[in-house]
Amino acid sequence: MQRFDDPASFSAWTRQVRGRGESIGFVPTMGFLHEGHLSLMRLARPRVDHLVVSIFVNPTQFAPGEDLDRYPRDTDGDLAKCAALGVDAVFLPTPESMYPGGYQTVVTVPDLTTNLCGRSRPTHFAGVATVVLKLLNLTRPTVAVFGRKDYQQLAVIRRMARDLDLEVEVVGGPIVREDDGIAMSSRNAYLTPEQRAQARRLNQSLTAAEAAVAAGETDPVALIAATQATLSGLSLGEVDYVELVDADSLAPVDSMTAPAVLAVAVRFGGTRLIDNRLLVPHAV
Amino acid sequence: MQRFDDPASFSAWTRQVRGRGESIGFVPTMGFLHEGHLSLMRLARPRVDHLVVSIFVNPTQFAPGEDLDRYPRDTDGDLAKCAALGVDAVFLPTPESMYPGGYQTVVTVPDLTTNLCGRSRPTHFAGVATVVLKLLNLTRPTVAVFGRKDYQQLAVIRRMARDLDLEVEVVGGPIVREDDGIAMSSRNAYLTPEQRAQARRLNQSLTAAEAAVAAGETDPVALIAATQATLSGLSLGEVDYVELVDADSLAPVDSMTAPAVLAVAVRFGGTRLIDNRLLVPHAV
Repeated sequence: MQRFDDPASFSAWTRQVRGRGESIGFVPTMGFLHEGHLSLMRLARPRVDHLVVSIFVNPTQFAPGEDLDRYPRDTDGDLAKCAALGVDAVFLPTPESMYPGGYQTVVTVPDLTTNLCGRSRPTHFAGVATVVLKLLNLTRPTVAVFGRKDYQQLAVIRRMARDLDLEVEVVGGPIVREDDGIAMSSRNAYLTPEQRAQARRLNQSLTAAEAAVAAGETDPVALIAATQATLSGLSLGEVDYVELVDADSLAPVDSMTAPAVLAVAVRFGGTRLIDNRLLVPHAV
Repeated sequence: MQRFDDPASFSAWTRQVRGRGESIGFVPTMGFLHEGHLSLMRLARPRVDHLVVSIFVNPTQFAPGEDLDRYPRDTDGDLAKCAALGVDAVFLPTPESMYPGGYQTVVTVPDLTTNLCGRSRPTHFAGVATVVLKLLNLTRPTVAVFGRKDYQQLAVIRRMARDLDLEVEVVGGPIVREDDGIAMSSRNAYLTPEQRAQARRLNQSLTAAEAAVAAGETDPVALIAATQATLSGLSLGEVDYVELVDADSLAPVDSMTAPAVLAVAVRFGGTRLIDNRLLVPHAV
């Protein structure tokens, strides 16, 4: 497994690979890899000649006061996991090499980033879109895989790739859950045991909504109210949002005539957890 | 010479060309081609296997009230000029194919676009950067050539290409002038004979500044004041700006210790003309 620490040597290598007509699959991460990340790598592995993983805690997608400084890191563990999975190259750039002096370009995907996480993190998705575009340009993969847990991020990247005529297939990987149902996230490491116990309620609320839809519930207002009621009873958690949105446009839906995404975010102290579920109406 | 009217067929062709290991040179234009455009094509021609020209009057770089609807067009004449110059392919997309329903991504280069033309055209350079990124992604040239007449545009595109890790060399071509010294521009077609006579003053004011610098003038305030004085005497023209800026950062300079760009913009009725000159101080 090769390791690249600077954009110039990394892009020189990907250029060589592509020059030989070989394909690259790409999984961008912020490191502290868990089964969720590994599942994305397993998805990409059989589809390409070379599997590339980036590990970069991108400062521009954190707002002041967010958890940039304490974001968990484990480079040695991450490299071991990548090697065990058959990753061909890991790219670990520094912030200084990605954003050298004079850097200023920003990519925004405005309509998709006004609600859900965009409401409480208004600059987050500009940071995400910009760094992912840079990483895609350095890597030039044929396929890039992102987790559906960060559903809005996936939608933003899909939209950006289409809008900017990128030659990459953007694939969303299924949410991977812990045994207790909590969606895997590097940020789960922040939770106290008590918060962790209550955090199970996110997945439970989504499962309840799924069951309600399966039983014939078609009213978005009722689905949101039931989910909100389930989550607002938590003594240690504060609901950030419960929204039911169109799977592509992320616009709030006013009827359940097509599959829609129920997305939730809850704060446990300084830790904000998100989860979501695609709800497919009975008749569809 | 091949002609492509939609992004999909054009990018399929450029992908084929690149797959054969052949290089592409790219000159993006808004059509109504004049000697300025042709000089850019001549610059690129010997450097690449395939020379590609795009002709696209990009609506997103025009603000409401600007000249989008009356921007001059001459597709047949443009195609004849391209063919005569040995252009291999012309790309003439429609606005609908470049910005289909749901399109929303925007690229901004904020620090370079606050002054000069950015002041009176605050949304212009986001439109330019975004469409140029799309065109570069569809074309994937090894070299792309832009005129130095639109100096701020060239600086924005250079910066964007560097910031977003694009694999393209951005080349600036020299300003080409009419016999009377006016910088070639498709918008010169808007001028009445009387406006046209006064428009010669832009180039004259720059030449005077150049002579002053050659004679030892090093004070930016004096250079700007003299240029402003020359231009403000016009009965048919209204000065939009006179600025002396760093050639890379476009920040106003407070001393002439390094080459700097003197840039001017003057409105003649509804027609806004721009011109600029690189001023190289005596001692450098």
